[in-house]
Amino acid sequence: MPTSFFNTFNHYTLENDAVAYYPDSIDSVLQKLDQATTNEAGFADFSIELRISLFNEIIIALQSGKDELRSLYCRESGLNEKRFNIEFERVIYQLEHFASFLKNGNLNEEFEKKVINGKEISFKRSNEPIGKVLVIGASNFPLAYSAIGGDVVSALAAGCPVIYKAHPYHIGTSLFVAKLIETSLSRLSLSPGFYIHYTDNHSNSVTKSILLSGQIDAVGFTGSQSVGRYLMDLCAALPCPIPVFAEMGSLNPVVLCSKELENNEQKYADLLAVSITNDAGQFCTKPGLIIYPKNEHGEIFKEKLIYAIAQKPHFHMLHPIIHDRYQKSVNSLSKQTEADVLLRQSGSNSISGEKVLLKVSTKSFIDNSCFHEEAFGPLALLVEYCDERDLVALLSSLNGQLTGTIIANEHDQALPMVISILRKKCGRLILNGVPTGVNVLSTMHHGGPYPSSSDSRFTAVGQKSIYRFVRPVTFQNF
Amino acid sequence: MPTSFFNTFNHYTLENDAVAYYPDSIDSVLQKLDQATTNEAGFADFSIELRISLFNEIIIALQSGKDELRSLYCRESGLNEKRFNIEFERVIYQLEHFASFLKNGNLNEEFEKKVINGKEISFKRSNEPIGKVLVIGASNFPLAYSAIGGDVVSALAAGCPVIYKAHPYHIGTSLFVAKLIETSLSRLSLSPGFYIHYTDNHSNSVTKSILLSGQIDAVGFTGSQSVGRYLMDLCAALPCPIPVFAEMGSLNPVVLCSKELENNEQKYADLLAVSITNDAGQFCTKPGLIIYPKNEHGEIFKEKLIYAIAQKPHFHMLHPIIHDRYQKSVNSLSKQTEADVLLRQSGSNSISGEKVLLKVSTKSFIDNSCFHEEAFGPLALLVEYCDERDLVALLSSLNGQLTGTIIANEHDQALPMVISILRKKCGRLILNGVPTGVNVLSTMHHGGPYPSSSDSRFTAVGQKSIYRFVRPVTFQNF
Repeated sequence: MPTSFFNTFNHYTLENDAVAYYPDSIDSVLQKLDQATTNEAGFADFSIELRISLFNEIIIALQSGKDELRSLYCRESGLNEKRFNIEFERVIYQLEHFASFLKNGNLNEEFEKKVINGKEISFKRSNEPIGKVLVIGASNFPLAYSAIGGDVVSALAAGCPVIYKAHPYHIGTSLFVAKLIETSLSRLSLSPGFYIHYTDNHSNSVTKSILLSGQIDAVGFTGSQSVGRYLMDLCAALPCPIPVFAEMGSLNPVVLCSKELENNEQKYADLLAVSITNDAGQFCTKPGLIIYPKNEHGEIFKEKLIYAIAQKPHFHMLHPIIHDRYQKSVNSLSKQTEADVLLRQSGSNSISGEKVLLKVSTKSFIDNSCFHEEAFGPLALLVEYCDERDLVALLSSLNGQLTGTIIANEHDQALPMVISILRKKCGRLILNGVPTGVNVLSTMHHGGPYPSSSDSRFTAVGQKSIYRFVRPVTFQNF
Repeated sequence: MPTSFFNTFNHYTLENDAVAYYPDSIDSVLQKLDQATTNEAGFADFSIELRISLFNEIIIALQSGKDELRSLYCRESGLNEKRFNIEFERVIYQLEHFASFLKNGNLNEEFEKKVINGKEISFKRSNEPIGKVLVIGASNFPLAYSAIGGDVVSALAAGCPVIYKAHPYHIGTSLFVAKLIETSLSRLSLSPGFYIHYTDNHSNSVTKSILLSGQIDAVGFTGSQSVGRYLMDLCAALPCPIPVFAEMGSLNPVVLCSKELENNEQKYADLLAVSITNDAGQFCTKPGLIIYPKNEHGEIFKEKLIYAIAQKPHFHMLHPIIHDRYQKSVNSLSKQTEADVLLRQSGSNSISGEKVLLKVSTKSFIDNSCFHEEAFGPLALLVEYCDERDLVALLSSLNGQLTGTIIANEHDQALPMVISILRKKCGRLILNGVPTGVNVLSTMHHGGPYPSSSDSRFTAVGQKSIYRFVRPVTFQNF
């Protein structure tokens, strides 16, 4: 019998929701996993054509459940209808994107012939599913990085059964999506073992047991650096270590150069204000570090940014725990003696994300490691640089980042240097734009050097994210 | 001052060679590494064209040094001239193979455009070098998996500086090759920091210090499971974990089915006898487990295999330590009460590899984990199966393997089942052939599920091995 239950947070009443969700027991999840393992036929029969059909079925199911899904999503996450629509469309597009990737033969076998000792031998390189993939959903995208998010879709596209852990603060949304996927599998007579959804308990012991059972072959995770590293360490220490792709967020530095900034102070202040505050800044690519020049243009920009952010609306944070964690970051950063508080603006209710702008010197930023940690919410750190030497020192001090943004034009002499340092530190560089908005593309790379992700060679977004879950096998002389 | 030195083994005198090699000090290697790091210009300037030129220069240098190289190689490794020629040609071909991979634009940038909020945005996905790659050479391929082996060439092809640890039993060969590479770099005015060669001391403390220094971004290793796992654990526990590609060898099971075996007993006995004994069986793909049917054809095959192996010449093992380690494996396996010794045939001198055939029952093989460990030398384990149930149990008990070989034809009913199990366990399947001989091909996959390699998604051989050392970066709106 479960000893405890979950309530999600109701963003309309600002209290815990009345519905109680009970965690699954370790035994019941392990039993389902076991069935997924022994069901060899089902596993082998998950052809590329069936995967495409499954994605089409899921699209139909999602469309038919859209209204109910919207209502659950908004109530549980506090994200608004506009955001729901964007995320819903992203999920549909993502399913189509992977279906077309498969249709275009990208995962097909590759053939070659070679004469060996006078005899022509055929070689075929096939893309096998790596095995069962555990996906741990993120709180900030209840659809697009969750029960039917990028990790789930790319693992299924690779032919892998997915074991999905619901995020405790949107279990309702998660269960609803899982039901739609289960129905889609059933309509195609595919084994239910291809998508196993579970709710963990408060100590996450089900997830740990699943990993220690040795039945999981890869992990997809989106979330904090501390949990990501915990998973990396746990899986590296298994008798049979398995790959973990953890996408863990970062500071996402923005470097403003004088020539491009000149006369564009308002434009970039507005762009960045939206990127920092939208949906309470709860994006792994939120620009959390703004590096601007110590001159007239930098000063104008700074003032305009403070004003623009102050004018932006407050947004709900996703749930009380993320709100508390963010508030702790805000308090801790504001308290640093080196930090100059430019703006602190609380919202009207207990779940609102406080808008915060802090300023620190180049030296303080470099020396104080707490300024290098992500604050997950509508906060940005401003650092002023005097010259190129300052800039080199600043950029060289950065950890691995998901993104780096450069505001510059061909008249900014520092541009080549900034690119040459940031391309080594970041997974994606953006010129004269903002880092938020990670498009589902073939050329997208969403990942970066540690600690922004666990493995800089892979992306969590776009078609190529499938290669996290593909294991090539060569067939010689078949 | 170094406190100890190395002598390689002289396979002509059967004693330690007179030449003493002194290990490099930790400080000197770290200093070179540091220079490779700070030399940003050199790193960035290692264009694809320069990499192709470098490979061409190295080919010329190797050709010009071929005679001296052959003499060092044969003396230090005990491998004969015929084998030297095969390995030398493989190295030349490998350099050409990667040059053509680069020439064909496989590492070029990928472009895409996407309309975002009414504006067309360009995306470019570029393949950046992952950073500095530590390569730890193998004893059994003093060229092709060593100072100018697959790991080195694929890392350089990716644009990465290589830090190469010489194998202590072919330091002379290694230093000679390193000199050729250094000359090639210098002829192209490339930084010497792109190839740093060092000799470690007896406790391997230089290698450990290099890894702990945080200056290495990826590791390529070929060798034993114990050292491979040690490296995996060390690198996973670093403050900033780095990927290790360890290719660690395996049993390489061969499954013989009755219909194909019928009337081909002699042919397969001969093929396998060569594959097991050639160069003293010191190949990571040596067939170490022969699974054959309990019937007339199996019995004939077994007798012919014993006879064929007994007729094969003895070969020198690579060095005294590998010889001792192998002898310990032989003694330990032969002593198991379940093991039936079919053949033990010692060579004429102290470095010869003893030819060994053992037989165990299906049950003993499944139950006794020591039969699942690779014995690196001319030894094979024979296991007889009664029926398909036996075969399923046997194959299901296997760990991850580099290769799986199937001797069967369309009349063998078990074939689909054997393929369906082995494709989950192996990196390469071979039909009616032998697993030794890993061709440098675009379709080659040399790697497999743990413990045969550290990451089943990557290959150590062929063009695609470059992706172990490539880190994509997306340039948005550039």
